[in-house]
Amino acid sequence: MGRKLTRQDLRDAAETYKNWGKWGPNDEIGTLNYTRPEDIVAAAGLVRKGKVISLALNFDQHGPQGAKSKYPPMGRINPLHLMLRTGTDAYSGVLDRRGIRAADDIVVMPLQSGTQWDGLGHVFYENHMWNGYDCREVTCAGAQKCGIEKTKDRMVGRGVFLDVARVAGKDTLDDGYAITSVDLDRTAAAHAVAIKRGDFVIVRTGQMEAKLAARNWDGYPGGDAPGFSFETLDWIHRNEIAAIASDTWGCEVRPNETEPGINQPWHWITIPIMGLTMGEIFYVADLAADCAEDKRYEFMFVAPAIPITGAVGSPTNPLAIK
Amino acid sequence: MGRKLTRQDLRDAAETYKNWGKWGPNDEIGTLNYTRPEDIVAAAGLVRKGKVISLALNFDQHGPQGAKSKYPPMGRINPLHLMLRTGTDAYSGVLDRRGIRAADDIVVMPLQSGTQWDGLGHVFYENHMWNGYDCREVTCAGAQKCGIEKTKDRMVGRGVFLDVARVAGKDTLDDGYAITSVDLDRTAAAHAVAIKRGDFVIVRTGQMEAKLAARNWDGYPGGDAPGFSFETLDWIHRNEIAAIASDTWGCEVRPNETEPGINQPWHWITIPIMGLTMGEIFYVADLAADCAEDKRYEFMFVAPAIPITGAVGSPTNPLAIK
Amino acid sequence: MGRKLTRQDLRDAAETYKNWGKWGPNDEIGTLNYTRPEDIVAAAGLVRKGKVISLALNFDQHGPQGAKSKYPPMGRINPLHLMLRTGTDAYSGVLDRRGIRAADDIVVMPLQSGTQWDGLGHVFYENHMWNGYDCREVTCAGAQKCGIEKTKDRMVGRGVFLDVARVAGKDTLDDGYAITSVDLDRTAAAHAVAIKRGDFVIVRTGQMEAKLAARNWDGYPGGDAPGFSFETLDWIHRNEIAAIASDTWGCEVRPNETEPGINQPWHWITIPIMGLTMGEIFYVADLAADCAEDKRYEFMFVAPAIPITGAVGSPTNPLAIK
Amino acid sequence: MGRKLTRQDLRDAAETYKNWGKWGPNDEIGTLNYTRPEDIVAAAGLVRKGKVISLALNFDQHGPQGAKSKYPPMGRINPLHLMLRTGTDAYSGVLDRRGIRAADDIVVMPLQSGTQWDGLGHVFYENHMWNGYDCREVTCAGAQKCGIEKTKDRMVGRGVFLDVARVAGKDTLDDGYAITSVDLDRTAAAHAVAIKRGDFVIVRTGQMEAKLAARNWDGYPGGDAPGFSFETLDWIHRNEIAAIASDTWGCEVRPNETEPGINQPWHWITIPIMGLTMGEIFYVADLAADCAEDKRYEFMFVAPAIPITGAVGSPTNPLAIK
Repeated sequence: MGRKLTRQDLRDAAETYKNWGKWGPNDEIGTLNYTRPEDIVAAAGLVRKGKVISLALNFDQHGPQGAKSKYPPMGRINPLHLMLRTGTDAYSGVLDRRGIRAADDIVVMPLQSGTQWDGLGHVFYENHMWNGYDCREVTCAGAQKCGIEKTKDRMVGRGVFLDVARVAGKDTLDDGYAITSVDLDRTAAAHAVAIKRGDFVIVRTGQMEAKLAARNWDGYPGGDAPGFSFETLDWIHRNEIAAIASDTWGCEVRPNETEPGINQPWHWITIPIMGLTMGEIFYVADLAADCAEDKRYEFMFVAPAIPITGAVGSPTNPLAIK
Repeated sequence: MGRKLTRQDLRDAAETYKNWGKWGPNDEIGTLNYTRPEDIVAAAGLVRKGKVISLALNFDQHGPQGAKSKYPPMGRINPLHLMLRTGTDAYSGVLDRRGIRAADDIVVMPLQSGTQWDGLGHVFYENHMWNGYDCREVTCAGAQKCGIEKTKDRMVGRGVFLDVARVAGKDTLDDGYAITSVDLDRTAAAHAVAIKRGDFVIVRTGQMEAKLAARNWDGYPGGDAPGFSFETLDWIHRNEIAAIASDTWGCEVRPNETEPGINQPWHWITIPIMGLTMGEIFYVADLAADCAEDKRYEFMFVAPAIPITGAVGSPTNPLAIK
Repeated sequence: MGRKLTRQDLRDAAETYKNWGKWGPNDEIGTLNYTRPEDIVAAAGLVRKGKVISLALNFDQHGPQGAKSKYPPMGRINPLHLMLRTGTDAYSGVLDRRGIRAADDIVVMPLQSGTQWDGLGHVFYENHMWNGYDCREVTCAGAQKCGIEKTKDRMVGRGVFLDVARVAGKDTLDDGYAITSVDLDRTAAAHAVAIKRGDFVIVRTGQMEAKLAARNWDGYPGGDAPGFSFETLDWIHRNEIAAIASDTWGCEVRPNETEPGINQPWHWITIPIMGLTMGEIFYVADLAADCAEDKRYEFMFVAPAIPITGAVGSPTNPLAIK
Repeated sequence: MGRKLTRQDLRDAAETYKNWGKWGPNDEIGTLNYTRPEDIVAAAGLVRKGKVISLALNFDQHGPQGAKSKYPPMGRINPLHLMLRTGTDAYSGVLDRRGIRAADDIVVMPLQSGTQWDGLGHVFYENHMWNGYDCREVTCAGAQKCGIEKTKDRMVGRGVFLDVARVAGKDTLDDGYAITSVDLDRTAAAHAVAIKRGDFVIVRTGQMEAKLAARNWDGYPGGDAPGFSFETLDWIHRNEIAAIASDTWGCEVRPNETEPGINQPWHWITIPIMGLTMGEIFYVADLAADCAEDKRYEFMFVAPAIPITGAVGSPTNPLAIK
């Protein structure tokens, strides 16, 4: 990628792409505002065959957390699913005093442990979060501003799938490959689909499928990966998309294109500066196969966050409805 | 409701309404099979104004768990949302060694603590679960059969909202009021909507709104409530609906219509015998207002479960898209 | 208590009682240093009848968290004990593939939800913690300084029990009653016991027993309570005790003796300024009965913290060995 | 170890070593009954230099859970320590509205994830637990019989340390090495210490220290290990010890001495048949060094369980007081 990006480059990008105030001083959802009611109606019109494709990885002990990582997580584990009552309790007769044989359960789940939305409280630029809110709005009591619950009626629109790996003629892009704006445009052109304001763009690198095939997530969380180049900020900004998602741990290319000491530079701009909601760890294999078959790379996209008050992210089961 | 229902009544109902084998011996999703691709296409056609209405209560410490109850829960707490990193950490400079200022979080959440789907592993009839599976398939390791993840691409179809309270001319139905098949038909008729095979039916009692207005959930979890009469099993069976949901803790009327020792008799039949997925603690106030205004009680309904492997329930953020 | 204490009073107390540097610039355990090896040998010499008395409340859903409170907690719940495997799993035969029938379990437990030690990372004075460490040493990653694990070989010494309620001729001291230095000295004198450097002092107000008898914890967590007057700081300082504990939620008297806006003023000084480890929610009924019977108010005291790295508190099962 | 043990060998051992009823039909603590008050008084007499040695590994993300294992755990993770409030919150000023700058925390901790007691509800023999109780007493609601809370005033007595590795002239015993009764007697003799009724015996294999030195726990949880031979049941029974502990994951030798399909045969007998409480993952390096130096292998031992109601195990911070 030529020279390494510096803090000054980030400062410049922050000036260029800043959307603060664009939707008023009290906005907490950023680019999700780009999707308008007529876009939702139009998206519904893309439902032709009545097929629903889930873009979620199942949430369990086989998820990517806990794998070897260059950038160890802090407290992110795979979801821990525990039972409060079981069928074996029922079988043993110990539930009958309650008059019903029922199982029940509980989960201990980092909100960004699997297929997930990054909320706008997730990343700060210096001491600010999206729309200029003070980063101290996110305390141990949660996010007083930009909590994921603010998006509860928003994650609906037109989805566009960009199978960058496929168009590049590869099963999976190489780790460290920086997807450029040119790549995105070339992929869209190959798919005969045009990006529109308010779209939800989902990009395939193939990395997740490679890890799944290897039955080994080592290097996936926090490791080297193909992903968005810093310069795609321009593409995102120009296209006025609602959100972007990918099949990697962190969307952007790793190693990052920055000087040492700056980690995930694209995130520094997308979330706090642009107000862009992002999806990560999306499972896109089934969608890729379907799109390759019917040649239709657009669909209705519905991916509601679980409205956990004050959360800075959320697991989601994103649905492509074709 | 006249005489109290007995175990023999339940046995009879089990014989009458049993759907085991209807979708093959390996089926794990029951009545969700009723929704066909053409129903999904038709449902998308109901999206006219591009409005998305969430039917989820926010998940937080203000939820219904922990309120006073005649039927104390076992381990159900309100979701506990905890931070792994915060904006205050960022502000304090302690994250800069990681090269990014980011917050992260985790939740400890009973899967049926808020707006939720009851999965088919939730309730057993004697030693069996849906489709005749042995109840011992649900152990501390989770549900080996009928886990909620099996529904991951299924919760999409036509939604029909039945505002029983409104049609009855009440703000909220009385606790203990048993909604009958006649009530459901009368409400549908008043709304000029007809129930079809594969529908997702959402019923309003008004109880949740009364609790919210009182800012006090006492009596909501496990307490007396308006809800479905046992005899609505016939209506559900006859109409071949995909799923049913309500704004109460447990869908069915409480006190139950049964002799002592039988708790939630309707659940004994719906889940394990019919294979009916059910929604509870749905927040329907906004939907009710919108439907009253535009007189349209049908819409596209998308309410994906979070596919936690082996779970017997799931939080959901159900969306009515109109 | 005469006039309300002001911030200036706290500032003055901080100057008067500050132990920073007393045990070197790297000390992380404060007054636990007062207990010397010879004190431990002497304490062991108090074991005469071979009786062990636990001062722990059992940790379960019947604990004090969740009760009504004037000062609502943030995230403190009663311990949530969950099973990973059960005897019912064993009975159902589903464990036999593992070759052993074993149960296993897990707990979700706020560290200060029951009988507990307040660690030295628990309370800050302005931007400092014990020994002058920066409060930013306690982040979402835990306490980098003064974590409870630093005390792992320290909670052993002579215990002295001061049954203030009994000596005052009451079952329980009144809520709002401020225990003074005079009360403590009078109680010790009545018990014919003298406080020594390095002692672990345990004080009974009777409040917990009153709540247990009422089977209702309302008002216990964060509510009005008898407890230490601010002026007992002098007694604590002068006597060079290792630690102090009581049977209330927060040791000190509530309502506090301060002007509005200053909560738990005694804590502001004891923990960060003096370096005093404190015990709360100690169950002392059995100890009280035993001491009343044998007239011996001193004993060997062993109350190890669970050395959770970076924790600012710990559950404990404190033992009085007589 | 010659021929593999069969189920008949286990049945025979169960008959030989069964202590059911020995302490009455309602006993829930088994061999802890062997320790009498006079033993506690005598143990206190062993405190000569006032030194406290902790036998606990710190509880954190560096613990043994999650390491590679031949026998994967079910739900056992390293303790997850999470903050409810922090010093960075304090620094950021967001706590001042509460009138106190305080940190608080919570742990998600499998009870057998680190230094721990196995409670008597942990292992079943066929459908029974200790003292003949039905294994269905241990449900998702916890252990109705033999919960760890029953031991709350019991884990005090004389500790005897047997440094088997050292006496064998090794840093660590080999994986798969079965420690025999002869080894135990020879070690005790070398240490000039005699085992007595009611003792707490702690045995060193050196395995933990090898793993710590390698900074890699792979193979420790559920892997091959030195440990007790099945035939030590006789030694344990004959010596009437209160409890036994070791520095390995599971006390007994692995691979086990049994035919396929029988895992941890020694546990089948110790816990449910003998009623023997067992300690695992004890950190004994410091104790080993101290005993080697002062040649005194006996001491006062205090290792209280945290009395979590219905728990089948407990973390502990065991103290050797010399």
